[in-house]
Amino acid sequence: IGDQIIDLSVLHVQELLTVPGLTHKELLNRYLNDFISLGKTVTRQVRTRVMEIFSEDADHALRERAALSLAPVHEVELLLPLRIGNYTDFYSSKEHATNVGSMFRDPANALLPNWLHLPVGYHGRASSIVVSSTPIKRPSGQTAPGENGIPKFGPTMSLDFELEMGFVIGKETQLGQQVSTEEAEDYIFGLTLFNDWSARDIQQWEYVPLGPFLAKNFASTMSPWIVTLDALEQFRVDGPVQSPPVLPYLLFSGKKNYDIHLKVDITTASGHQKTVCNSNFKYMYWNMCQQLAHHTVNGCNIQVGDLYASGTISGPDPSSYGSMLELAWRGTKPIEMPDGSQRKFIQDGDTVTIRGFAEKDGVRVGFGEAAGKVV
Amino acid sequence: IGDQIIDLSVLHVQELLTVPGLTHKELLNRYLNDFISLGKTVTRQVRTRVMEIFSEDADHALRERAALSLAPVHEVELLLPLRIGNYTDFYSSKEHATNVGSMFRDPANALLPNWLHLPVGYHGRASSIVVSSTPIKRPSGQTAPGENGIPKFGPTMSLDFELEMGFVIGKETQLGQQVSTEEAEDYIFGLTLFNDWSARDIQQWEYVPLGPFLAKNFASTMSPWIVTLDALEQFRVDGPVQSPPVLPYLLFSGKKNYDIHLKVDITTASGHQKTVCNSNFKYMYWNMCQQLAHHTVNGCNIQVGDLYASGTISGPDPSSYGSMLELAWRGTKPIEMPDGSQRKFIQDGDTVTIRGFAEKDGVRVGFGEAAGKVV
Repeated sequence: IGDQIIDLSVLHVQELLTVPGLTHKELLNRYLNDFISLGKTVTRQVRTRVMEIFSEDADHALRERAALSLAPVHEVELLLPLRIGNYTDFYSSKEHATNVGSMFRDPANALLPNWLHLPVGYHGRASSIVVSSTPIKRPSGQTAPGENGIPKFGPTMSLDFELEMGFVIGKETQLGQQVSTEEAEDYIFGLTLFNDWSARDIQQWEYVPLGPFLAKNFASTMSPWIVTLDALEQFRVDGPVQSPPVLPYLLFSGKKNYDIHLKVDITTASGHQKTVCNSNFKYMYWNMCQQLAHHTVNGCNIQVGDLYASGTISGPDPSSYGSMLELAWRGTKPIEMPDGSQRKFIQDGDTVTIRGFAEKDGVRVGFGEAAGKVV
Repeated sequence: IGDQIIDLSVLHVQELLTVPGLTHKELLNRYLNDFISLGKTVTRQVRTRVMEIFSEDADHALRERAALSLAPVHEVELLLPLRIGNYTDFYSSKEHATNVGSMFRDPANALLPNWLHLPVGYHGRASSIVVSSTPIKRPSGQTAPGENGIPKFGPTMSLDFELEMGFVIGKETQLGQQVSTEEAEDYIFGLTLFNDWSARDIQQWEYVPLGPFLAKNFASTMSPWIVTLDALEQFRVDGPVQSPPVLPYLLFSGKKNYDIHLKVDITTASGHQKTVCNSNFKYMYWNMCQQLAHHTVNGCNIQVGDLYASGTISGPDPSSYGSMLELAWRGTKPIEMPDGSQRKFIQDGDTVTIRGFAEKDGVRVGFGEAAGKVV
């Protein structure tokens, strides 16, 4: 709330947060999984009650008592909010997929045949998802052979970020169960910012035929709190028109995209900062309900704490491209930094910071940041 | 032991299994993770002590007391042994990769350029790994468009098994840490049988460019116990010669393959059974130490309970191919079943059972089975 964090366990001890079904244990746990598992009936009441307590109309004595639960955000250590069981990364921005396809394949046929028919996705690594501010070690790995036919080995020469958002599962299914697009929002607890760090040279050599592996699994950065879907209700918007029409199990009704402003800053080791990307979550071609319906159409079970990332969020304008690969167009259009240096990819000492917020009718919801310094 | 299981928690209550560092809690837990986390110093002593107690030379009174911990394996419910945090599937049989490459690409250039230089792998789904005997529901999904250009949707028409083994991580690393081939065995607790069920038609449509997803994540079956690496010491053998030479981080010394006999049976709904595959874990081109060194060379952290599967284990002879795709050669050589029916892929009502054992000098180590009936 503003630049303060609220310690819900303090409110609970003060008996200001009495919600049926909620016990002190869920508020003290290292991770939010047990709290989220209580279900939206409970977690919604917690949110409503917290809003009551800290609203400007609240009783003065109440606010004063509740203030004991506040601490300045810069004085606390923000932790990874989830024990992430399963992590999937989608590839759902049409602009991003088109840009990548244009660079590496044929601009006239940039999208692969399946792309417009299903939200392409792949499984990622849960163990190496870290919270904002965790330093990122430049990974080493194999890259394509040079003239001698022997693959090269060493630190990646093309370390990249990917501007993404992730949604967190709040309700499990059993193996064999499907979640329809209509039911999907019941299963989504909330959203985070996400940086899917990528080593392009490693990826290029390893990814055929089974997909990205070591190019991605050295680290991913997420923001330290989760904005509930409830808090985003007023920011719903229509997504892009989907053509050709999708199969019945991917049809949906209503506004399923969200107007969330996103930006990416690069800060050099010497402190020079530049905003390299301004994008928006509303650009996503495939929405979260479709992603979840697709993910479960074969009966794959989902679990509380699963994280499903959007894929790089690029918009129509070059300034909204969500990765260095696209912004510097495979190194052909280096980005000028304020100190006169250039960037084709991310250099050691650079900090990449993703920020996001939604704003409408005087209400602003912040996502905090997902930042990481490359070391 | 034979057809009995040993309840270690009973031995512990009887004070027959007193090992420093071991408490009753680790023996009662739902999953083995906490037991494995005690480390090999402890778990090795447990194994040694259990072998003492049940050896033929053991004191008669001791054996009689210890017999209280035994139960016939068919009278107990065998559970999923692990809480699996992260699951990776490799693709490390040269014969399998060659067969698949020959069928779908060019027999003269069956292996992709990276295959001989690194153990190709991808992240799989941990949530849908089930224990042997769990029924497998035939998954539905999108497949390639027909003449009208619209993708098809429905139950997979080419449900397949993949004969694999998996190794279980017994010791964690921190993000940024590498595990060398020499250190790798310290991090491997033991091995299981593994069936990586696959829907070939779904896979064919979805897997470019980011790899298999819904074609695999509907279910994988593992055997209900883990054979420790210690128990397999005497079954070590040399693996295939690796040519071209591998990069330095993939070099290893000593025998890193294991002579483990593997077979796959298909049993029809009416009870007709046929062994369709006899293979061996020793055929693996890339060994587990190389797989783990590769997986961590970029600093990816590993956790106790992670499962790393081998990929389909095919041998040189057609009778040793580890999937229906290869055995029936993409449907061109259907398998005759004892009831006169034919199989190109797995039919509803079929049970697929993987069994495995190692045997030498009168010592036999069984892996149990990984079985699943398709419903």
